[in-house]
Formats: sequence, C-alpha cells, structure tokens
Amino acid sequence: MSYNTFGHLFRVTTWGESHGPALGCVVDGCPPNIPLEEAAIQRWLDRRRPGQSRYTTQRREPDAVRILSGVFEGRTTGTPISLMIENTDQRSKDYGEIAEKFRPGHADITYWQKYGIRDPRGGGRSSARETAARVAAGGVARAVLAELLPQVQITGYMVQMGAHAIDRARFDWQEIERNPFWCPDAETAAAWAEELNALRKAGDSVGAVVEVVARGVPAGLGAPVYAKLDTEIAAALMSINAVKGVEIGEGMAAAALRGSENADEIFMGETGPEFSSNHAGGILGGISTGQDIVARFAVKPTSSILTPRRTITKSGEETEIVTKGRHDPCVGIRAVPVGEAMMACVILDQFLMHRAQLGEGGGGRIG
Amino acid sequence: MSYNTFGHLFRVTTWGESHGPALGCVVDGCPPNIPLEEAAIQRWLDRRRPGQSRYTTQRREPDAVRILSGVFEGRTTGTPISLMIENTDQRSKDYGEIAEKFRPGHADITYWQKYGIRDPRGGGRSSARETAARVAAGGVARAVLAELLPQVQITGYMVQMGAHAIDRARFDWQEIERNPFWCPDAETAAAWAEELNALRKAGDSVGAVVEVVARGVPAGLGAPVYAKLDTEIAAALMSINAVKGVEIGEGMAAAALRGSENADEIFMGETGPEFSSNHAGGILGGISTGQDIVARFAVKPTSSILTPRRTITKSGEETEIVTKGRHDPCVGIRAVPVGEAMMACVILDQFLMHRAQLGEGGGGRIG
Amino acid sequence: MSYNTFGHLFRVTTWGESHGPALGCVVDGCPPNIPLEEAAIQRWLDRRRPGQSRYTTQRREPDAVRILSGVFEGRTTGTPISLMIENTDQRSKDYGEIAEKFRPGHADITYWQKYGIRDPRGGGRSSARETAARVAAGGVARAVLAELLPQVQITGYMVQMGAHAIDRARFDWQEIERNPFWCPDAETAAAWAEELNALRKAGDSVGAVVEVVARGVPAGLGAPVYAKLDTEIAAALMSINAVKGVEIGEGMAAAALRGSENADEIFMGETGPEFSSNHAGGILGGISTGQDIVARFAVKPTSSILTPRRTITKSGEETEIVTKGRHDPCVGIRAVPVGEAMMACVILDQFLMHRAQLGEGGGGRIG
Amino acid sequence: MSYNTFGHLFRVTTWGESHGPALGCVVDGCPPNIPLEEAAIQRWLDRRRPGQSRYTTQRREPDAVRILSGVFEGRTTGTPISLMIENTDQRSKDYGEIAEKFRPGHADITYWQKYGIRDPRGGGRSSARETAARVAAGGVARAVLAELLPQVQITGYMVQMGAHAIDRARFDWQEIERNPFWCPDAETAAAWAEELNALRKAGDSVGAVVEVVARGVPAGLGAPVYAKLDTEIAAALMSINAVKGVEIGEGMAAAALRGSENADEIFMGETGPEFSSNHAGGILGGISTGQDIVARFAVKPTSSILTPRRTITKSGEETEIVTKGRHDPCVGIRAVPVGEAMMACVILDQFLMHRAQLGEGGGGRIG
Repeated sequence: MSYNTFGHLFRVTTWGESHGPALGCVVDGCPPNIPLEEAAIQRWLDRRRPGQSRYTTQRREPDAVRILSGVFEGRTTGTPISLMIENTDQRSKDYGEIAEKFRPGHADITYWQKYGIRDPRGGGRSSARETAARVAAGGVARAVLAELLPQVQITGYMVQMGAHAIDRARFDWQEIERNPFWCPDAETAAAWAEELNALRKAGDSVGAVVEVVARGVPAGLGAPVYAKLDTEIAAALMSINAVKGVEIGEGMAAAALRGSENADEIFMGETGPEFSSNHAGGILGGISTGQDIVARFAVKPTSSILTPRRTITKSGEETEIVTKGRHDPCVGIRAVPVGEAMMACVILDQFLMHRAQLGEGGGGRIG
Repeated sequence: MSYNTFGHLFRVTTWGESHGPALGCVVDGCPPNIPLEEAAIQRWLDRRRPGQSRYTTQRREPDAVRILSGVFEGRTTGTPISLMIENTDQRSKDYGEIAEKFRPGHADITYWQKYGIRDPRGGGRSSARETAARVAAGGVARAVLAELLPQVQITGYMVQMGAHAIDRARFDWQEIERNPFWCPDAETAAAWAEELNALRKAGDSVGAVVEVVARGVPAGLGAPVYAKLDTEIAAALMSINAVKGVEIGEGMAAAALRGSENADEIFMGETGPEFSSNHAGGILGGISTGQDIVARFAVKPTSSILTPRRTITKSGEETEIVTKGRHDPCVGIRAVPVGEAMMACVILDQFLMHRAQLGEGGGGRIG
Repeated sequence: MSYNTFGHLFRVTTWGESHGPALGCVVDGCPPNIPLEEAAIQRWLDRRRPGQSRYTTQRREPDAVRILSGVFEGRTTGTPISLMIENTDQRSKDYGEIAEKFRPGHADITYWQKYGIRDPRGGGRSSARETAARVAAGGVARAVLAELLPQVQITGYMVQMGAHAIDRARFDWQEIERNPFWCPDAETAAAWAEELNALRKAGDSVGAVVEVVARGVPAGLGAPVYAKLDTEIAAALMSINAVKGVEIGEGMAAAALRGSENADEIFMGETGPEFSSNHAGGILGGISTGQDIVARFAVKPTSSILTPRRTITKSGEETEIVTKGRHDPCVGIRAVPVGEAMMACVILDQFLMHRAQLGEGGGGRIG
Repeated sequence: MSYNTFGHLFRVTTWGESHGPALGCVVDGCPPNIPLEEAAIQRWLDRRRPGQSRYTTQRREPDAVRILSGVFEGRTTGTPISLMIENTDQRSKDYGEIAEKFRPGHADITYWQKYGIRDPRGGGRSSARETAARVAAGGVARAVLAELLPQVQITGYMVQMGAHAIDRARFDWQEIERNPFWCPDAETAAAWAEELNALRKAGDSVGAVVEVVARGVPAGLGAPVYAKLDTEIAAALMSINAVKGVEIGEGMAAAALRGSENADEIFMGETGPEFSSNHAGGILGGISTGQDIVARFAVKPTSSILTPRRTITKSGEETEIVTKGRHDPCVGIRAVPVGEAMMACVILDQFLMHRAQLGEGGGGRIG
C-alpha cells in the first residue's frame, strides 16, 4: 500500500516523481476565507530551491507553484487546494546507470524489491524532490496559522554538520538567514563552508542535525495517546528523506538525566505557568505546555556520491557504482525548510483537532 | 480531539485509566483462523507486569487479560477482538495531592490545560498503565506474525541506563532474559542493579535507552512516503509515555558520518542481496531491506519522584511537591516489552498493507 | 479487512458477537466535561431491548450498560469511553443447525465464504445484537448534543410495515411513544398489530420502512464532497443489518419530479431563510439547510423464519432449513432506535468536523 | 472540515472547481505494474463528456486527461497517480446572477452558510463537473480490475426518467450503448427522447433512476460492519451530486416483502452455490455472494432551470431567479458513467481490503 497523505484534518496528499512532468499536492481541510496567493507559497519554496548556493545540488529548477483550485479572488474557499510545480530541468540521461545498478544507501533496491518496477529517473518518488510539495503545503499551513494563531513562529536551522556542532553560546536568531546553512552561529557557518568545500572536492557527502523550533504555540495542543503532538512531529520529521533520528527537547540525552534534573519546575508567571527550564521541549504527555516546541532530526549523508561503492545489478552481478548526477553534498541544508514545513502542518493539524473537540474556549484555567 | 487508535489495517484502539475499573483494547483487522488464546497474550503481559522485581513499581496487578470477542474455539474469526484487563490494586488515596498540584515533568498540567478536567487518580489516561493494553495488542500481533511471517523475531532490550551504556562487545542475546533489566550484557546489568538501588534510596529516578530489533522481516515492507516503515516505527515508539527520542540504525549519529562511511555496500548472497554493514537499520527509503530492523528510543527519567520539586497548584499558588505513590525508578525497564509490542504491531500492519497492494507474490527479483 | 469503526472525529468502534460473553464499543473523540451517566445511556438501550412486546424477539436481555473508562465523577474527560453490555440469555443450543446449514437471506454463507470460519452462535458478529453497541454510542452522542446543540431533536418511527404505509394526514408526534411500533399513526399501528400477529402465526416475517427526522440541526453541517451529510447518513443507515435502501427527503420519488416541482423555493423568515417545502430533506449539496433532516431506510423481512426454505450445507448438500430460535417477525421495529442512534452519531460527528474547519463562528450571513 | 478523499486502500482525492483552470484527482494505493495509458482513462471520460447529444448540457469540454505521475513506460509504479483535466469552455459570465441570488434546490445557499465564501462560477466545487475526476479515477480502477479481477464487468444504465420506467421484459444489454440515455430498452429510450425535448422547450428538467450492475464479483468481498460492501456502495452513490436515494437489490421494495418471498433460496451449482433469485442484490451481511451486485440511485431533477423560482439574495431580499447557463435537462443521463466509476472504485477497494486481511487464498470452501 502506498500512503501519500499526511495529517488528520489538515490533510496533504503529495504526488510526483523527480523527473516526471510535474509534482504537487492537494491540501484538504483548509479553513475558508484565509488570504492565500501563489507568492505566499513561493516564498517558502524559494528557500528550498536547488541551485542557490554552491553547497546544494546544481540542478536548476524554478519550482514555480501554481494554485489550481480552492482559492477564489485571493481567499481560500474551504475546498481542496491543488498545487502544482512543473519540473523543467530534468536531464534524465544523468541517471542511466542507476536503472540497472542499486546505489548503496539509497532506496533503489527497496523500491525494486517492493514494487518490481520503479521510475529510475532521479530516484522517482523516493527523490528529495518530493519535499518541494511538502514545502508548498507548509506554505498554506503558514498562511492559515498567520490568521488563526498569529503568534506562532516556526524556525528551522542546522545545529550540526558532520561531527561539528554549533556553539549554543553564540546562538543568534538573526544569523540564520544570513548564511547558506541556516546556521544560527556565524563562526560555525564559516567553518562548515570550508569543510563542505573539501568534502565536495573529495566526492563525498556528510550528514547533519536540523533543529526546528515553534514559538508561541498555545498550551493544550496534542491528541493523546496515538496522535500526541510529539508523536506527530516524530512521524512528520522521520518521513523526510534520509532522516534517521528524531528528538524532542532533551531527546536521546534524556536517558542520561535523573528525574530531579529533568523535571522542569513550574512557577506562576504573569499570564500563566512558567517553567524553570525546557527539557521537555514544550510537550508533556503529548500535549503542548505553552513553551517553545523544540524538535531535532538527523539527516544521513547523501548516498549519491562520487566515491565508488560496491554494489550489485538487478540481475545480481556484483559491480561498483559512482553516482555522477547533481547531488547535495549535505542534504541536511535543504532539509531545513522541509522540517519547518512539516512542523507548520503538524501544529495547524493539531490546532484543528483541538478545536474540533474543545471548540474555541475549552481547557482548564490556572490561577 | 482524542486519538486512541493506531495502525492502518491492524488497528488497535486502547481505552482505560490507571485507576478506573479496567483497561483494554479492541483489535480490528486481524486475519481469521489464527490460533489465539488468552495464555498467548498473557505471556507478554507478564513481562510488563509491575511488581516483579524491586526495580519496578510495587503496585501489584495480576494484569489478567480476558478475550471478550473475535475468537471462536481458539481461533480468530476476523472480527474485532476485545481484550480487557481489570484493575485490582488501585489504592487511589496515594494520589490525593496531585489532584491539586501539578507534578513537574508530568502530563498533569497539560491534561488540565487541554481538557479542563482530568482523572487525577494515578495520572488517569496519561499513566504508563495504558501500555498494558498495547502489550496485549502486541500479543495478538505476535500470534498473527507467527502464522504469516514465522521467521520474524522481535526482541527488545535496554542498552543504556542513565549515562551508563552497555558494552556491545559483550552483547549476548541469551542474557536478555536472565536479568531484570532485559540487558544483553551481564556485567552492565550487575552495575545497573547497584546504581538503581542507590538512586531509589536517594528518591530519584533515571532515564534509559531501549533498543528493539526485528529479525527476519522480509524486504519490501513499508508504505512510502508518509507511512514509511521507519516513520511508523518512530510514531509508535514516540507515542510511548516518557519517550523523547527515536532512532533507526545509526540514528542521530548518522549526522556525523560521511556518505562513503554510511552507505551499506551490497553484495550477492546465496538467497539474495547482502550488505556489508547495517547503518541503515534495515530500512532504505522507508522500505525494509531484509536486514535486521534496528530501532532505539530514549525514555526520560520518571517525573514522579521523592525529591521535592517546585510547582504550582490549580489555583496558581507556588508550592512544592513530593510524589509518593509507587513509581518506577527507571521506567525504561518496563518500556522494553512495550517497545516490542509496538514493533510487532507496526510490522504486521505494514505486512497487511503490503499484501493489500501487492498480493502474495509481488516485488522485483534480483539475480 | 474488518472495519468496525464509524465516524471521523466522534469515532465509535463496536465489538462483540451475539452469543459471546459481552459486546460493547469504544467511543473516541468525545468532548470533555459532558455530563454522562450509565442511566442516560441505558434509557436508549431500553428502547431497543428485546423481549419488550410480543412483536419482537423473546430473547430476554437486560442490556445493562457499564461505563469502563472516559468518565470521572459524572463527566466525560475527553479520553475514550469504553462501554460494555454483558450477554446473559444466550441459549446457543437453539442454533445448532445453522452451524452446518446456511440460512437463505442471511449472512451465514457470506461470512463463511469470506473468512472460512465464523461464530455460528446466533449469527455471531452479523447478528442484530451488534446494534446494541450502536445504541449505546448513540446515547453518548445524544448526551453531547444536549450540551453542544441542545435544540437538536432526533426522532425515529416506522412509516411502513409490509405494504402498509401510514397515513401522513394522521401523523402525530405524540403517538410514536404510545405503541410498540413507534408508529406516528394510531390507526395504522392497530392494523399492524393484527397483521403482525397473523404473520407470526404463519411463521413468516415482514419488512418495514423507518423514517428518522432530526429537527433543529443548524445550517452548514456537512463535509463535501465525500463526507457530505447525506452521504454519511446513507452509509450509517445502510450499515444497519437488513437495510436495503436509504432515502433523503423525496428519496427515490425525486426521480419522478420535475425541476420546477422539486426545488424548494426560498423566502426570508424572521431569523433567516425559510423554504416553501422540504423535498431536499434538509440537505443541499451535502450540507444542512437548517430545515428538518429527513431520512428513511427500508429493512428487509427477517430471514430467520419458520417457513422451510431450500438451502445447502457447508459440504454442498442440498437440504431444507427452518430457523427456530427466537426472532423478530419485523426487525424493522427494533431498528427504529438504531436509526436514531446512527443519526445522532452522524450529526455530532459532522458538527465536530464543522467546528474543526470553521471554529465556533464561521459561515456566511444572509440578510 | 472538507473531505475530498474516498476509499480505504484505493484512495481517490479529487479537487477542482467548475470554472477554475483545471480539475483532477490523485489516486493513491494503486497496485504497481498495471498497464495504464491516458487513452484507457479517456475512454470513460468521453462517455461522461458534456455536449455529446442534445439531451445534455451544451458546454463543450474536451475533458482531456493527463497523467502527471505514478506511471512509467505505460505501467503503474505503485506511487500516486495524479490526473489533471483542464477546463477550457468556462464562459463564467453566464453565472453573474447566481453570485448574489441563491438557486432553489441548489448548493448555493448551503455553501454560503457553511463557508461564508464560495466560488460562484458555475457552482464551484458543488458542480457536477467534479464528477469528471471521479470518472477518471474509475478509469484507473477499471484498468486495475482488468488485471486482478478480469471477470468483473460493471455496467450502468438508466431505468427510469421522470415517472417513466423501462419495461424489464425488453431489457437488452446491447441496447445500452446504442441510445443517448444508456437505456436498455429501445422503446422506452425513444419515448424518453420525446419527453425530454418537450421538457427542454418548457425550460424544465426531470429526475431519473440509474442502475449499476457489477457482474463477476467473487463471493467474500465486504468489510463488516461499517465498511460493508453495500454501505460503501451507498455512500459512493449518495455522494454523487443530486442523488437522493440508493437501493441494493430489492431496495425500498424489500419492505413490502415477506421473509418467505425475500430469502433467495440456495442450490448447489457446478462451481459453487447458486441462488433461486437475487432479492439481495448480491450482498448478504455486507459481503458479496458471487451473484450480480445490483445498485440503483435516484437523481433529482436539475435545479438550474429556466422556469422562474422564488428565492432570496445574500442580503436577504426576496426575488425571483431564472438560471440560464447551459444545464442538463436530465442530469441522470450523465450520472450513468459516474455511477459506474464509483462502483468500480468500491469493488477494487474492497478487493484490496479483502486481500490485506485474507491474502490471495482465504475464505471457506463449500462442497
């Protein structure tokens, strides 16, 4: 079974292959009367667009989005919003070899083993190009959040490239937009630039850790127990290509803490509860606390590299492969806007789920 | 919105509070003609049962499961299987204080903020007691797997308690069943016993990392792109109480690798493709490779501890809280059978999804 | 695949066989803080209960419902509500013959052909006893509607038994509760009593048409285009045992009308639009108009009859069957509270869906 | 909430407005390796296409379908299939008046009341044009059925126009394709032609009853109890624009039968059970019997007519309306291929659901 829809009430169905004529998505469940224009979506796509710096794939795609339905005179109508992005720079001759050989670390072999057929042009459906549709959907989610929860701000950034993590002491929100790595630490960004140049020359690639923070999310969002806010975030982020780990708040490091260290103590602030710390990453029992939602995900290094690797062909012969094509040496960079988009979709979806059960008031008062 | 069902085709709906009369689940979508008896489910529940060693909560629950429907003369009929476990040792007077005060690090405050009402007896629905229903459902999943994919073996174990990880060089599958920590390394298990005794005396708790391995899973399972096998595992594990991070294969450490290190090279074995390593954790592009599926999750330290923590009351007054009750000093221990159960459910669900789309043959041959 | 859940946001999962130890349901997605007691649910079950008049099956079941979760101190908590009804009068020896022979017109043969196993005691899962769980869920839905949409009134009644329809000119809402047929026309009710006595003596059974009206439903409910209000009602009613047809408003008779006759003209009333007629049954484009929602369904005659019918055995031998047991000569009578329950669930579900997308205001003003 | 997806495993999400740039659907869950070309889908769209006879709307749309994803070298890949149909003949000036006035019997008023905004051009999303996307999806379903269940034949036809029903004694399968009404009775078709001409001149419209038969469906399909085969068919057909009633087998007439008349007696045929009659319409207990699946639906007369009707404006003023535009005098005619498409989708979906739970063997033998 293929399963190309995510979300419960804000439902996004994506379609399209890397080298097909187009890709896109259908966004269903969007509230009506939300201002929405192509430009508002394009803005986010432009962040993910390939070919913008020398640190990402040199494939050049305008990634121009068209709204085909669901919007009338600049406002959503509450009916499904169909978004389409045409593929233009497909150069599928680059991919001749991978029609027969399986790239190690890539989905080539598993798609073949599952389906017995696959679109080999650029990885087909398993390509990171699919994430353009997610970013477009995230653009719609952001437009809705801007109306319904205007205080919510979602920001992604890279906190680690290879083994080199940022220095949290130098964290600067403003810096994120200033370097090609969405890195909140200028000094680390400069070092990454050098490291990545060296890697690219070596025909190799490297992994990364991306952090996504959602500020301003009200307390009470989350649908226990199998659509908890952290569960949904974990699923959304793990579904992104090449992601191998997901953390909320302390994440894996929580294992090493004691209960007395890990529990965020509670105080009474001016407008409600406040916490002494945020080990929880803004989520307790699967429900938001009102603190920043903090999630991280690890992106493995691109498996399409120039370093020769041993592999087999469809007919079972052992051979070597070198993936030429045009690939990202650190696919984590372009995963930043994708992580943001998924977070935006999840938070909106959870807000709608909350509103269904509890209406617009709801929830218990404190104080 | 409350969301208490997981699975697409093998669907489990759990219900019940920690101190209500009973808890249970309804398992829908189970294939018919599968041998199933209460004892087969009870076996797994007994592993999770509280009060079995001094390292877990002293609450004593027989956790005896009853099959109320869906089974006729020892075989499943294909109709919904209703499982019920009565609560017997509820001692709810232990929980008087937490009706008014919020335990830091616990879902008390968020349930209140979400719903404006909560069952305060033992954490109500947010209690780890809910996981008994998961383990029961996992027992059904195991019974079905035993018929449909008999080669599949699912085993969970603790690989880290606090900051103390096992030594992989001493890994021994047999050891797992021999110590109260499900620890595959006898030496580490002994050390943990001492450490946990000390912690318990100090009225504190500690986190853990649990690893779950599924061996024998055929290649081709996974429903791209939003119900990928790793996505579903991540969601299933993150939905367990107190889990803050989930990893597949290399997990977060994949970020530090280079592409040339991370890609598992492919060879031709006697019965099909083999790999030089398993950085991928048995999943590429969201689809199983035929290698071991390897997942890990971090469980935070129990927040119900004897160490006083600062908090507030419902009416907004600042105060302190000490949680007496009977709590697990390392809830990660009892999370092991829960992680196994979730893995069993996900793999069965994915198998059914695969069979729906591809029938019983399907998939591409190699060689 | 077995599929035992209905509803999108107010989700009901039913379980249980006719002659198993118990049956019940889990209601998920219920808003919190709704007053709910067993007695409020029991009230509706008592209407459906067998053995209340000589016109229904003589099986005697108290159908006493227990709330096992989701309610704390008389109010819903927003977590799943588990309801259980124990079977007491099971007398499964009555059913010996149908373990081997297929009753014509009954699900015996298709359950066998599908599953290769079935619980033959009283029809197992295909028995009308499953509808007790629906009525219990409907009781919860009614309790929620009483809080959220208190103006909504849902009433079912029989409008036809065999070929004998009521006289609409004698329609009297008060009469419905006064006779054992839920018939709004006293004169017809008296005639039906005689007809049914004759039928019962003849060992035969008869079909019926039930109408369910929901008054006070606000305009705007319905989720186009595949969860339209009428679509959901049609599915809900068609899923009831023995139902063969479903109509909204004019129903099948709409085919014979001209556009000029069928269109309900619109006027401006004191509080909003009013209509000259209600051919539409209160639904246009799948969305409620604010008029009465009017649905009807046809129940076929019980196939378990004393008249011998030709059939075959599992081993393929031709034979005859007479179904003794204790069966309803007109199962349509007891379908009335079931139809009401399904309507209540659908309207609540649609209300929650509407609230998710549109919040509590929403919708366009007229005038 | 908007809900634009139907199907459980063969999932179709439609999008698009009557007068937007395009409409289409995404088909997810399609098995791989199924031969599929645009021409195979186009064939069914051409049957539904407007402007083919003088008995349907004179809007001229080529309704040319494009496959944008999910097919590689003429075969499905198992990934989502995106289908797009561009709108060309939109002439939206025809619709000026209905932006302000509500057409009686039409969804204008309810979309406005629900959403507070609507695309008034040609009815927007509530237009019958949405059904083109269903027919395209049905074309995919038919292509899959041709591979997986090649014996299945699905045929729709009109059995009643206005009050004038066909004569079943003259039923001729061949005749269906020979007249513009898909009428299996040539004599009645000729009479309908005259009646419809008269109606059109009178500026009026008329309803119809369409019957859809699926022959060759194997016994055992259907997912009790809330996704029964008849439940799913009822929902699928009721979701078509203007449908007010749905029947299976005897349908509403089953109410008037006695149990002894209605039960289809069972015999042993050469290859399995056979039945003396088909009152059940091929479905017992929600599961197919192996007989013909017989469903009917009533389509109300088009509400867009030239006869003036009384209505109100958005601002609440009472007025009259005459709908000029280009409308079908009997929209039932073009509903025939839509009913077929929905039936094809439901049967395929149920087959996949069955295969998930039972694999390729499964089910009980008789004889």
